[in-house]
Amino acid sequence: ELGTFGEGINKIKPEYVRSFQFENKLLPSTWIVVRIDGCHFHRFSEVHEFEKPNDEQALSLMNSCAVAVLEEFQDIVFAYGVSDEYSFVLKKDSQFYQRRASEIVSVIVSFFSSMYVRKWREFFPQRELRYPPYFDGRAVCYPSSEILQDYLAWRQVDCHINNQYNTCFWMLVKSGKSKCEAQDYLKGTQAEKKNELLKQQFGIDYSMLPIMFRQGTSVFWDKEEKIVVANDGGAVGKSAEENFCGTL
Amino acid sequence: ELGTFGEGINKIKPEYVRSFQFENKLLPSTWIVVRIDGCHFHRFSEVHEFEKPNDEQALSLMNSCAVAVLEEFQDIVFAYGVSDEYSFVLKKDSQFYQRRASEIVSVIVSFFSSMYVRKWREFFPQRELRYPPYFDGRAVCYPSSEILQDYLAWRQVDCHINNQYNTCFWMLVKSGKSKCEAQDYLKGTQAEKKNELLKQQFGIDYSMLPIMFRQGTSVFWDKEEKIVVANDGGAVGKSAEENFCGTL
Amino acid sequence: ELGTFGEGINKIKPEYVRSFQFENKLLPSTWIVVRIDGCHFHRFSEVHEFEKPNDEQALSLMNSCAVAVLEEFQDIVFAYGVSDEYSFVLKKDSQFYQRRASEIVSVIVSFFSSMYVRKWREFFPQRELRYPPYFDGRAVCYPSSEILQDYLAWRQVDCHINNQYNTCFWMLVKSGKSKCEAQDYLKGTQAEKKNELLKQQFGIDYSMLPIMFRQGTSVFWDKEEKIVVANDGGAVGKSAEENFCGTL
Amino acid sequence: ELGTFGEGINKIKPEYVRSFQFENKLLPSTWIVVRIDGCHFHRFSEVHEFEKPNDEQALSLMNSCAVAVLEEFQDIVFAYGVSDEYSFVLKKDSQFYQRRASEIVSVIVSFFSSMYVRKWREFFPQRELRYPPYFDGRAVCYPSSEILQDYLAWRQVDCHINNQYNTCFWMLVKSGKSKCEAQDYLKGTQAEKKNELLKQQFGIDYSMLPIMFRQGTSVFWDKEEKIVVANDGGAVGKSAEENFCGTL
Repeated sequence: ELGTFGEGINKIKPEYVRSFQFENKLLPSTWIVVRIDGCHFHRFSEVHEFEKPNDEQALSLMNSCAVAVLEEFQDIVFAYGVSDEYSFVLKKDSQFYQRRASEIVSVIVSFFSSMYVRKWREFFPQRELRYPPYFDGRAVCYPSSEILQDYLAWRQVDCHINNQYNTCFWMLVKSGKSKCEAQDYLKGTQAEKKNELLKQQFGIDYSMLPIMFRQGTSVFWDKEEKIVVANDGGAVGKSAEENFCGTL
Repeated sequence: ELGTFGEGINKIKPEYVRSFQFENKLLPSTWIVVRIDGCHFHRFSEVHEFEKPNDEQALSLMNSCAVAVLEEFQDIVFAYGVSDEYSFVLKKDSQFYQRRASEIVSVIVSFFSSMYVRKWREFFPQRELRYPPYFDGRAVCYPSSEILQDYLAWRQVDCHINNQYNTCFWMLVKSGKSKCEAQDYLKGTQAEKKNELLKQQFGIDYSMLPIMFRQGTSVFWDKEEKIVVANDGGAVGKSAEENFCGTL
Repeated sequence: ELGTFGEGINKIKPEYVRSFQFENKLLPSTWIVVRIDGCHFHRFSEVHEFEKPNDEQALSLMNSCAVAVLEEFQDIVFAYGVSDEYSFVLKKDSQFYQRRASEIVSVIVSFFSSMYVRKWREFFPQRELRYPPYFDGRAVCYPSSEILQDYLAWRQVDCHINNQYNTCFWMLVKSGKSKCEAQDYLKGTQAEKKNELLKQQFGIDYSMLPIMFRQGTSVFWDKEEKIVVANDGGAVGKSAEENFCGTL
Repeated sequence: ELGTFGEGINKIKPEYVRSFQFENKLLPSTWIVVRIDGCHFHRFSEVHEFEKPNDEQALSLMNSCAVAVLEEFQDIVFAYGVSDEYSFVLKKDSQFYQRRASEIVSVIVSFFSSMYVRKWREFFPQRELRYPPYFDGRAVCYPSSEILQDYLAWRQVDCHINNQYNTCFWMLVKSGKSKCEAQDYLKGTQAEKKNELLKQQFGIDYSMLPIMFRQGTSVFWDKEEKIVVANDGGAVGKSAEENFCGTL
């Protein structure tokens, strides 16, 4: 058998097989953002009994993994996370993996996933990890720091809209409505209407909820080259120059 | 503060920010191969005291994760692994993630990594995982089953060449040579010469070494829709039709 | 002035500027189809008084340019044209411009355009070319000859549907209807209905119209290595093997 | 025959055939440069007896075509030409063809080629166009006006180096040397050495040669929205803002 196998050795032309690989380099001198997103986290959060609408431990685990990513991959200068997603920003002139998209996305998502499983026990000492979670990822380039900031603001606006909705939804469910009823009830309501609902029906002042829930979390290197975790997500509002350009 | 943040909500144009995303769909009706590869596994295997040149437990952990990948992602019909790399073959007409390269590569590499950490204890009950490993990944398309088979044969030839070299190298090192001396000693030697060396100096018949070390491992669905792990890697020699086309 | 210019010479880093170029290679071992399409040919055909719905001279000029393309670029094995569009098929293993999409598309569209202007007088000796026409182009890969044939059949079906519609439309217009009336009249009519209309109102048997109008034109190298122009477009119905694989 | 053809109509699935088309959009908010380059112009210039090293009429024909390109495609704000190549710069936020690379490159190269043939007689009234020329083309994105300027400077430096070399080469050939001898003679000489050679052997002051030969030609819209042809190529030295940003 090794005989027939041995014969094959000389027939294979590695250059031919390799010629099917295609290049996917990201445009030089642009900000690379890698966004990863939990797959089927709806189910994952149910199985693992995450608190609704926000589980502080689960968010802290995400943030802790993001910190580890920044420590491991020095070209990442900023990260912004909300719920089960995280965006990582590489510096403009990064030559990480010669800017090949597949490699950059895959190592970040792989390292993050590994770390999540490894750190689980630290954040949920009493709860068993039933099955391993996973994340998808993609890379996008932004040619200027203005557009990069627009990107981060977009993610933060999304955080806000989703959190407001989820806060209402889960209060209604906890108060006895079915999920369908809660959904119908909220259909088409405006931001103000939702804040009113929380105040009047449940006595909740939305603006008093933990800022991490409302605005997400920023992670970045500061000027003393220490990693900062800003749980108010406030760093998003600052320009790239203020936040991390000083460290480049 | 929420005030200024609130103002921003209406300024952001999600369509503009999203317009920077680029499509990276893989050509329809071609075999998609996703190859993942351990990052810095040289160091990882040292820190975790893997047996050299092959650690059966470490290989079994890789294989077990590959089986889990096939169970999770039904579009994967075949996998081939050697050392710290694994190739996953998606069926020709797969519509997994609409064939978007980033998403396909990222979920496979993420799930594999998660699983590796989770299963570590099962394969190394006595050894602590010191730090989480990670993998890079990339996708390639092959337009015909002949070229797909050439690809797999190429990986298997690589397995053979590397294993033969490593077997000699580590025998020399174990017999007292320094790593540099071993390297020099082997520089430029042909396959036959290496087999002779093993036989004459160390009394080892290369063709008697475990076939998994010499030929890698195949994982695939058989016609009864059970997952087969072929530790002789022999399935690589068979055509796609014989191995897995029947199951499509 | 040359002084300041001269200084600049040493500041420019060509490798940096060149690093922004991206690769766009087409997958090896697939059929490359380059389709070119007249831009604003509606207006072009009016200004140059093309006969409606089909101008035999204009179609012959297109076909003559396609023949010249096959003579100039030996990797093109088949072409199919209808109206102001032409599809050129490169052989599966073509290494033309190392399969770079931009270069392949641009030289074909450039040569075709040049030739169109040059040959104008030959086909329209009495009519002045008022302004130069131009074409857009794009490349697509097809991984098997079956799908390639589906592509060609798709173009031919389009030819048929458009020609049937246009024949009705222009007969109605020539008989006194305005263009809007003709359009309304035809809205939603089926193929059979259109054939009936032609027969009953205008005494035209659609199947008796010149076959080039109804089925387009194929251009290819035959087995004696001569270029064949099949004005019945019939070659599209034959497999790649019958038409041109013999010549590869 | 039409019978069998008719049957095919319902079998074809256009969406399937179309699914093989891939997107190739250029990154938003970056400068798109389309560079076209004469194919086999060495031979073309010989057959058409262009003056060496520079044929003023041939260059003027190129420039005239570039002007026509700017008039036709309003998103092009700047062009720079030298020898048989021309670079066209589209404005940063151009939505021309939704920024699809193939279409943008193909229409520019097609229109330029058409125009070249059409205008030939105007610039060479006494010389017949023996065969139609053609050009290749490609697109590159530059994320900032600084890098765009570096690109243009790079092309201009190339112009200078080539022209200096060609001037020496053709003086040596005209003075009786064979082409091979001239080549050998110049191998490895520095810029200064070449200027000396011209002065001492041929009494030519390089800096007195027509500036268009030495520095290329810029074409752009000025602030009064007229097209300017700057035969000294001097506009390249100015920033994008000075040249054309005012007109956007």
